[in-house]
Amino acid sequence: MRIDLNADLGESFGQWELGDDSAMLAIVTSANVACGFHAGDPTVLRRTCSRAVAGGVRIGAQVSYRDLAGFGRRFIDVAPEELTNEVIYQLGALDAFARLAGDRVRYVKPHGALYNAIAHHEEQAAAVVEAVRCYDTELPVLGQPGSAWLRHAASAGLCVVHEAFADRAYTPEGRLVPRREPGAVLHEPEQVASRCLSLARGEGITAVDGSTVRIEAHSICVHGDTPGAVRIAATVAERLRAAGVELKPFTGDSSLP
Amino acid sequence: MRIDLNADLGESFGQWELGDDSAMLAIVTSANVACGFHAGDPTVLRRTCSRAVAGGVRIGAQVSYRDLAGFGRRFIDVAPEELTNEVIYQLGALDAFARLAGDRVRYVKPHGALYNAIAHHEEQAAAVVEAVRCYDTELPVLGQPGSAWLRHAASAGLCVVHEAFADRAYTPEGRLVPRREPGAVLHEPEQVASRCLSLARGEGITAVDGSTVRIEAHSICVHGDTPGAVRIAATVAERLRAAGVELKPFTGDSSLP
Amino acid sequence: MRIDLNADLGESFGQWELGDDSAMLAIVTSANVACGFHAGDPTVLRRTCSRAVAGGVRIGAQVSYRDLAGFGRRFIDVAPEELTNEVIYQLGALDAFARLAGDRVRYVKPHGALYNAIAHHEEQAAAVVEAVRCYDTELPVLGQPGSAWLRHAASAGLCVVHEAFADRAYTPEGRLVPRREPGAVLHEPEQVASRCLSLARGEGITAVDGSTVRIEAHSICVHGDTPGAVRIAATVAERLRAAGVELKPFTGDSSLP
Amino acid sequence: MRIDLNADLGESFGQWELGDDSAMLAIVTSANVACGFHAGDPTVLRRTCSRAVAGGVRIGAQVSYRDLAGFGRRFIDVAPEELTNEVIYQLGALDAFARLAGDRVRYVKPHGALYNAIAHHEEQAAAVVEAVRCYDTELPVLGQPGSAWLRHAASAGLCVVHEAFADRAYTPEGRLVPRREPGAVLHEPEQVASRCLSLARGEGITAVDGSTVRIEAHSICVHGDTPGAVRIAATVAERLRAAGVELKPFTGDSSLP
Repeated sequence: MRIDLNADLGESFGQWELGDDSAMLAIVTSANVACGFHAGDPTVLRRTCSRAVAGGVRIGAQVSYRDLAGFGRRFIDVAPEELTNEVIYQLGALDAFARLAGDRVRYVKPHGALYNAIAHHEEQAAAVVEAVRCYDTELPVLGQPGSAWLRHAASAGLCVVHEAFADRAYTPEGRLVPRREPGAVLHEPEQVASRCLSLARGEGITAVDGSTVRIEAHSICVHGDTPGAVRIAATVAERLRAAGVELKPFTGDSSLP
Repeated sequence: MRIDLNADLGESFGQWELGDDSAMLAIVTSANVACGFHAGDPTVLRRTCSRAVAGGVRIGAQVSYRDLAGFGRRFIDVAPEELTNEVIYQLGALDAFARLAGDRVRYVKPHGALYNAIAHHEEQAAAVVEAVRCYDTELPVLGQPGSAWLRHAASAGLCVVHEAFADRAYTPEGRLVPRREPGAVLHEPEQVASRCLSLARGEGITAVDGSTVRIEAHSICVHGDTPGAVRIAATVAERLRAAGVELKPFTGDSSLP
Repeated sequence: MRIDLNADLGESFGQWELGDDSAMLAIVTSANVACGFHAGDPTVLRRTCSRAVAGGVRIGAQVSYRDLAGFGRRFIDVAPEELTNEVIYQLGALDAFARLAGDRVRYVKPHGALYNAIAHHEEQAAAVVEAVRCYDTELPVLGQPGSAWLRHAASAGLCVVHEAFADRAYTPEGRLVPRREPGAVLHEPEQVASRCLSLARGEGITAVDGSTVRIEAHSICVHGDTPGAVRIAATVAERLRAAGVELKPFTGDSSLP
Repeated sequence: MRIDLNADLGESFGQWELGDDSAMLAIVTSANVACGFHAGDPTVLRRTCSRAVAGGVRIGAQVSYRDLAGFGRRFIDVAPEELTNEVIYQLGALDAFARLAGDRVRYVKPHGALYNAIAHHEEQAAAVVEAVRCYDTELPVLGQPGSAWLRHAASAGLCVVHEAFADRAYTPEGRLVPRREPGAVLHEPEQVASRCLSLARGEGITAVDGSTVRIEAHSICVHGDTPGAVRIAATVAERLRAAGVELKPFTGDSSLP
């Protein structure tokens, strides 16, 4: 049994530090590295790529709206053509550092508001897919099952990888419970770790209404932006390993489509 | 006989247009394309690269300080390590569009205040060279003979290409007359064209003091940021062609080191 | 009879020029001056304010989303509290230059996507109103009749001023015909001037379906971003004056609420 | 006996937090609040101003080069006229929040590389002075004795206030020992507190060579960007109060010129 753990990294900027990248690089197998549009200056990108490669962690491009002030967390109604080009720009920039570190960008996972928007915004979803297709048709894309993003990606012939969220509640239909609703986010490390083990084993997890739901995932997203989050991620990794689940990047998984 | 003509292109940004890129792409053989740090949004980069390749014009990376508000025309005392990484970032970003257009970044020519600074600023010159070396040791660099930039590049084993300026006066020692001095910039198209012909032929040109100076150049820099500048560039190209000088990108010149 | 003419000004940025501000300042009576968030660097703001005051043109704050790359033309789903603060920031910055020029910011007219959004987006409309209220409760706001923006402003006790668009077609209900529909924008200077005269006289104008519609407006918005636009604006001003309509800033109009 | 303590505040930006503003506002009497050019988004500015006024702390404008990526710590060779306008812009923006909080900007202290540059860069020093003069001739300026900044300010008739640095070593001539030299920064809270008490009493302090030097200061600058720095600042404030030194904003000091 195997699973991939992914987390957002490289989100410092200039004088401002965010997250404990060193700790997270010792936990995850795939790093969604910021590309400079919501976070991540060039020096941060270089350091993050270098450390990721040194630790055997795969580099993914965490592409975003151009919005440093909002950390990429606000929907921007950017024209699809411009969005495509903004994503290509970010892919090229990050790839320069990934290659310098001896690897290359291995997958694409959009960030924040862009991630949320392209779950349903057809034009923007198609625009990001078009960017990946233009850049490298072999590049897998990471996202949520059922999203417009993955649907468009599959139509375009891209390799599509499903992720689940370690600390988020799911509806019986397998959708995320919106953050503003009670119980949407799980905070107890052991509970989160147990769910992740179930996810890795392909077993059902308990949905928000108490029913059981099966989420098919090749990767589990964990967070590292607070000390508490790092602790949860570490607990998840330990529990999985203890249960005999191998933590491995999904990008080396030949069973993926 | 052959010579390359280079000009700055892709310097629009968002709603703001600058220069007549279409006209210039019909004149020059090498395009120094902005990379987004002083000008050039991703859509501009894509369009410029696409048109350059369609017109057989080679794409160079016009890397810059991070300074949209100042158009890269102000010296910034950025730390060498950060400068290296900022240049790598820009190279990767532009290269994505060059490759999408069917070619790739063929050379590097720094922009504005960075170009001026690394003529003598040893640490920054070395930092930009280090960026090129990290990105691709085969990438030629374009600059002025005698600059720290070309000296460091040569030491690092990079291919070094000399350029002359079509519309600038030279001292008897072969240096540019500073812009603030009288007669520093030539405005008369026929005069500029005659000088360019001399440059292409490897003949001496008249220095600011009336003496003759020889400037060895594989490329001549022309401007396109005003209607007058475009007219001068067109006159230069016509005169050269009429005199039997072939206009060809320097990057295909096997006689270069 | 009197009317105000307003136009967007101060929309250059650094090296990039936009619009013919000198020409427009000789035509309009109210200048919506960019505040640096979508356009307008501090030097542009100072020059524009100085020229406006010298020409007897009133200064309004053309506040915007923070979006230089998009020129403020893309909706951003910014949190209302942050939007309020971003608008206060812009008001203070522009007011510094207006006061230095001997006047002060006299009214507020949001720009681009923000203008369009707060026609119906209740939270953002309320957020911009809150900013004006925080900054100066005496500051009039300019907008379209029927917009959430003016409705919230009126509820907050702000002075509300109606504007009409010189070159836009109206529905029989007095709404703008969306730009993407045929006939939405009028291009013929004489036709535009005639409509403006009707608007100034309080007469009905011809709606897009041929019926007559009355638009109550204290100010008419003209454009200056292209040579054609400047020509239209000049024609409008001449025609109004020739017909005995006084062109006067609405901010001195004691008949306003 | 009385002294003012000043510190840099409001230096968070968007998602990125920096410093412990709450702790520092309980310690200092004057807050150098970032104005958005090197740090400080509008929401940060509003919150900081509001808390400062609530705590009886005076608001100063910590104006900077336009350089978020470099946190204002890199010299930029900006033209003096543009620098003047950039400072006016920042003063107006911050003042809007200071006034909304019930007070106003009470003084100006440039940040980082700008502070360092105008210690000796005559044109930029004069440019910042010109900005203050344009904005409000009654606004005091804070800086180091002997700097071009204070010399130009005094010539322009501005009120000039001297500051000393709590944790920095001084030469026998009363200048700061450059950071790169050994012993330039003091780290021991009790030692720093003792020096501050001497400074407040107008007594000499021990220079880097063991001699005694007198630094005349109306304000002492403390730091708050690390937990250790906050601890030092708290120790300084306690020691001063315990010794009967009143901590009071210099802006209310009628003995100042």
